[in-house]
Amino acid sequence: MARHITIGAAQLGPIARGESREAVVKRLIALLRQASARGCELVVYPELALTTFFPRWLIERGPELDAWYEPEMPNAQTQPLFDEARALGIGFYIGYAELAVEDGKTHHYNTSILVGPDGEIIGKYRKIHLPGHVEPQPGRDSQHLEKRYFEPGNLGFPVWDAFGGVVGMCLCNDRRWPETYRVMALQGAELVVLGYNTPNDHTGDGAVDGLSNFHNHLAMQAGAYQNSTWVVGTAKCGREEGSLMIGQSAIIAPSGEIVAMATTLEDELVTARCDLDMSKVYRETFFDFARHREPQHYGLIVERKGVGPALNKKAA
Amino acid sequence: MARHITIGAAQLGPIARGESREAVVKRLIALLRQASARGCELVVYPELALTTFFPRWLIERGPELDAWYEPEMPNAQTQPLFDEARALGIGFYIGYAELAVEDGKTHHYNTSILVGPDGEIIGKYRKIHLPGHVEPQPGRDSQHLEKRYFEPGNLGFPVWDAFGGVVGMCLCNDRRWPETYRVMALQGAELVVLGYNTPNDHTGDGAVDGLSNFHNHLAMQAGAYQNSTWVVGTAKCGREEGSLMIGQSAIIAPSGEIVAMATTLEDELVTARCDLDMSKVYRETFFDFARHREPQHYGLIVERKGVGPALNKKAA
Repeated sequence: MARHITIGAAQLGPIARGESREAVVKRLIALLRQASARGCELVVYPELALTTFFPRWLIERGPELDAWYEPEMPNAQTQPLFDEARALGIGFYIGYAELAVEDGKTHHYNTSILVGPDGEIIGKYRKIHLPGHVEPQPGRDSQHLEKRYFEPGNLGFPVWDAFGGVVGMCLCNDRRWPETYRVMALQGAELVVLGYNTPNDHTGDGAVDGLSNFHNHLAMQAGAYQNSTWVVGTAKCGREEGSLMIGQSAIIAPSGEIVAMATTLEDELVTARCDLDMSKVYRETFFDFARHREPQHYGLIVERKGVGPALNKKAA
Repeated sequence: MARHITIGAAQLGPIARGESREAVVKRLIALLRQASARGCELVVYPELALTTFFPRWLIERGPELDAWYEPEMPNAQTQPLFDEARALGIGFYIGYAELAVEDGKTHHYNTSILVGPDGEIIGKYRKIHLPGHVEPQPGRDSQHLEKRYFEPGNLGFPVWDAFGGVVGMCLCNDRRWPETYRVMALQGAELVVLGYNTPNDHTGDGAVDGLSNFHNHLAMQAGAYQNSTWVVGTAKCGREEGSLMIGQSAIIAPSGEIVAMATTLEDELVTARCDLDMSKVYRETFFDFARHREPQHYGLIVERKGVGPALNKKAA
């Protein structure tokens, strides 16, 4: 058995602060046409793929800040992307800043959508693991104010029957947390798609920051392997408004192997023909959850948010 | 700040079926003396370190099977190891098959203990994620009958104040499951020690089994990184009674970096001087659990054992 789907990771180089959504959408469409020429059925774009990574600046609440968000999707600027995708018969994943009105209140989310080859939105995800800070940190060239500009997502980690398989989404920092993949895998996810913007000065400690590319792949490869799922992670990268962000967008098999990887920090498409049935051998051996998991011992994972005392501590 | 501890991973080559515990203990003591000469304060031995990996054979319940288990620890055969460790002032971790009488019933566990530099047992762990099968699988040269010979551990994933830090234990297949590390990290674990016996014909699929070394490191490196903890994993390895088992015993930093690794499939000691405070930069940034985890979205991890329906499924 084999269920093949050809997937493209459509990496973006930097987007300047002044670059319009129209200009970005042209870049997205150029990548989409390349993807079509290479037989892709699904294209994965980055997180916050329509604008520069604005959480690097302190911006007061108000019109200047709100201009970075999309009140609806598609909208006038992005409609050409939806139209082109439908014309080519290619589905896509894309991230953007969402301004939502719910229960009469305005909310801000870091959001992604999955769009079918018919141009219709299949599902929406709102980023749960927001990195960074609420307040600007002293002494940093670039801030990381996602916790200021977004609320944690309120849609959980859903999965959808799509593209001949079961597909889940997440965003950027979510990929570092094993809970992300696990909750989707427990719903049968066979493919997890995600975008990221990862500045490589996250901690300010050179010994740590120098490992940014390694950590990016380590987390995604472990997520793929430990959950028997394909993972496609796509970067917005390069030196964007003075902040250098990592690339190495990757398509990762359920074996944890990287089967396609970008090597530039520019707009670049990498593709792979992915057999969704490749996960079977892992699901039926190492990671046959129903046979091997022991959830009665996992309670702390949901009972605690942070580190707490040892359950059974004995002094040495 | 730095809290250094010098740790040795004391890998074992194969143990023949007919090799006595006394002979194995001599090998363990030889490694312990090397460790002392290299300044180790803690030595990590493999899983089931006193005997051959007997779950590869179908053995009927009774005296022949029971002979592979230790009814008490220390015992006459292992007392020389405890004595030598105390004399050298070195603590150790070791795995063995445990025959326990609890509530008037006999139980069989795949167990490890942590022993202090004074020769006293600090804590005990019983393997929770048992791999393999209850019934022999047709067409396999070597069986993997851990599910037949052991009950899942009933002690959870405890941690102990020991060796100047917070130490947790697990065994072999536990290392592939992100829940293992997470439950310990939520109790403050700074060092996770484990032993393994990993035949590299686990699935019978060459494309999978050929990745055994990669998967071994991937799971431990991700566990270390995602939980800001040191991980020391020690193999029993080499061709043991016809079954080839992987080596590459490793000491892994909270960065996920392998800082020491064995390169033979024989008795081999590798050491590293580990700063337990190295975890701080990770715990205070990427993996500041109290700031970043969102347990309200992790419920399925404990609510489900196996894969179930999507919580929020929408047909494409």
